[in-house]
Amino acid sequence: MQTHPAAEIGMPLDAVDTPALLVDLDAFERNIQRMAKAVANSSVTLRPHAKSHKCPVIALRQMAAGAIGVCCQKVGEAEAMVYGGVPNVLVSNQIVGTGKIARLVALAKQAWVAVCADHPVNVKNLNEAALAFGVRLPVLVEINVGMDRCGVEPGEPALALAKQIAASPGLRFAGLQAYHGSAQHLREYAKREEAIGLAVAKISQSVELLGRHGLACEMITGAGTGTYRFEAASGVYTELQAGSYIFMDVDYAKNLALDGNPSSDFEHSLFVWATVMSRPTKERAVLDAGHKALSVDAGLPLVAGMPDVEYIRAADEHGKLTLHDPNRALELGSKLRLIPGHCDPTVNLYDWFVGYRNDRVEAIWPIAARGASR
Amino acid sequence: MQTHPAAEIGMPLDAVDTPALLVDLDAFERNIQRMAKAVANSSVTLRPHAKSHKCPVIALRQMAAGAIGVCCQKVGEAEAMVYGGVPNVLVSNQIVGTGKIARLVALAKQAWVAVCADHPVNVKNLNEAALAFGVRLPVLVEINVGMDRCGVEPGEPALALAKQIAASPGLRFAGLQAYHGSAQHLREYAKREEAIGLAVAKISQSVELLGRHGLACEMITGAGTGTYRFEAASGVYTELQAGSYIFMDVDYAKNLALDGNPSSDFEHSLFVWATVMSRPTKERAVLDAGHKALSVDAGLPLVAGMPDVEYIRAADEHGKLTLHDPNRALELGSKLRLIPGHCDPTVNLYDWFVGYRNDRVEAIWPIAARGASR
Repeated sequence: MQTHPAAEIGMPLDAVDTPALLVDLDAFERNIQRMAKAVANSSVTLRPHAKSHKCPVIALRQMAAGAIGVCCQKVGEAEAMVYGGVPNVLVSNQIVGTGKIARLVALAKQAWVAVCADHPVNVKNLNEAALAFGVRLPVLVEINVGMDRCGVEPGEPALALAKQIAASPGLRFAGLQAYHGSAQHLREYAKREEAIGLAVAKISQSVELLGRHGLACEMITGAGTGTYRFEAASGVYTELQAGSYIFMDVDYAKNLALDGNPSSDFEHSLFVWATVMSRPTKERAVLDAGHKALSVDAGLPLVAGMPDVEYIRAADEHGKLTLHDPNRALELGSKLRLIPGHCDPTVNLYDWFVGYRNDRVEAIWPIAARGASR
Repeated sequence: MQTHPAAEIGMPLDAVDTPALLVDLDAFERNIQRMAKAVANSSVTLRPHAKSHKCPVIALRQMAAGAIGVCCQKVGEAEAMVYGGVPNVLVSNQIVGTGKIARLVALAKQAWVAVCADHPVNVKNLNEAALAFGVRLPVLVEINVGMDRCGVEPGEPALALAKQIAASPGLRFAGLQAYHGSAQHLREYAKREEAIGLAVAKISQSVELLGRHGLACEMITGAGTGTYRFEAASGVYTELQAGSYIFMDVDYAKNLALDGNPSSDFEHSLFVWATVMSRPTKERAVLDAGHKALSVDAGLPLVAGMPDVEYIRAADEHGKLTLHDPNRALELGSKLRLIPGHCDPTVNLYDWFVGYRNDRVEAIWPIAARGASR
């Protein structure tokens, strides 16, 4: 519960209370247009991952720019999207448990909703629930293309599960989920290219095998912001699930900078707005934004526009800064923007995005699926 | 927003949906009693840190067991506590910014509320707001006793700020905030003892100096779960701010186990309830609880009661397990309890505690200050 709103529409940015989650609307809109353009020049469709923003307002913006729908990881996220007007949701994940499956299948009566599976017991349970609700649920087989997390192995195991789905009267075999998560954050361009090349080979072999058994893969879906160009050019993938491109965190930006063509890609548009709450020494300042205001699992945040100021340590409610330039003025009460190390779990800490343009608050968007972990 | 509640009162634990934040009520109540007993045998008062639980129901339980009130880090937390019936709140932190200071001072009309300061400009602003609202606000000087975060240095700088507070008609000088955060997680007992010994020497010297200038330190407050025994025995501290003792995370438990007398201290009472959502190989299982269901900033969670099962990697919505015992049955849909590496930021991800006893849900407590970062 926030007892106090961070901002009101029309406020100057300086008056916005901290910590708050800011969106630079110009940069955000340019990112949406850049991805739309990249996809328009390829043979794939964009299905951005809504786990990054958890916000139906943003999902509808992405669809207005050409996206076919969104992905979600959780039934609760899918509910928030559908209730917020998004008509097309792929749950790019396994949904296990009686209650969750009932919610998923019931939601499929209200919108186009599909799900992934990697286990015969789960397929059986999905089928029973779909029949009980009178739904024919599209189900994709998730295959392991290299990250060794969920998914059956490509080839024969994928075929066996696809056959089971196709033979289930409540289900419809819809294709393959083939996301290579660990390839997203490989530092080198060539390594990412190689990883996706191996994934594509596994998919092609599975598609061919399934085809020989009369099972067509209508959808082959995967990719993220770190690798989307490779999947788009693969000739195999039909959909891209990139999500972080709208915001860009520190980690993705490092990779793109190394690629040598940062200008062709995306800009940081998401910031944690923070206040200098203590100024104990000339070299040290303390912010009011720590673990509960940003996620450090992929590294510490950067201070936007101040390369001489380093965020060196997060505590639960504090962020410690080192000022490398002795002439840097950073008075008590100053506010600054932090670029999160990892956007997705940072967004999950907030109830609202505060969108600004020309240093004035222009939009306050509810993060409807904040905390929707079930 | 959670579109679906995790539990209902009376449900068997097995029926509780995941991820959910569980409290083992027996262990939780024993922890409260153990700390109450430890404090009863000393000359200090307990003022538990509510940043750990963010829940007025728990704060009132702690007060019923003898605590004088609670600490908070944020005005929003203090508001949640006061609105939830807690009559006595120390904001053990600096509050900077016009809006926040107004809220703090207004809250002091509704309950006993005190705050810390480490900067003359902040003291000036607090005084002006207190006068505007017709409040006399108790203010403590935060001194740096070793963690080099906020706080003025002990001795003369502390004296100067205390004098300014005492001379401010809207404020009342109430004592010293002297929390040694970095001592909490030192692995060795002797190192923690040494760190608090150094802190106590700095406090004593400051108390003596302030006393010579007619400034009595009514409150000297600090300590955490990792060091509370040293502060309690110091003869200098008047209040303990330990918070994590009610739940106990992996990191604190490691220290206490190394101390060699774990039985005399606290039990794990907080768990993340998770489901096995994928079972791709004999050695690998995947849970539905990752970064958005638990905080890994202080290390990965442990699997309760299954030493042969290791949580090896967190992704945003997934937790990867390695099963070291090939005979471990962990079927798709199984539920298990994770002991969070760090309780405080994990609690901040949830809206409700699900309290259970004898494997049955007995309490659902709102985490009223979840997300209250301002």
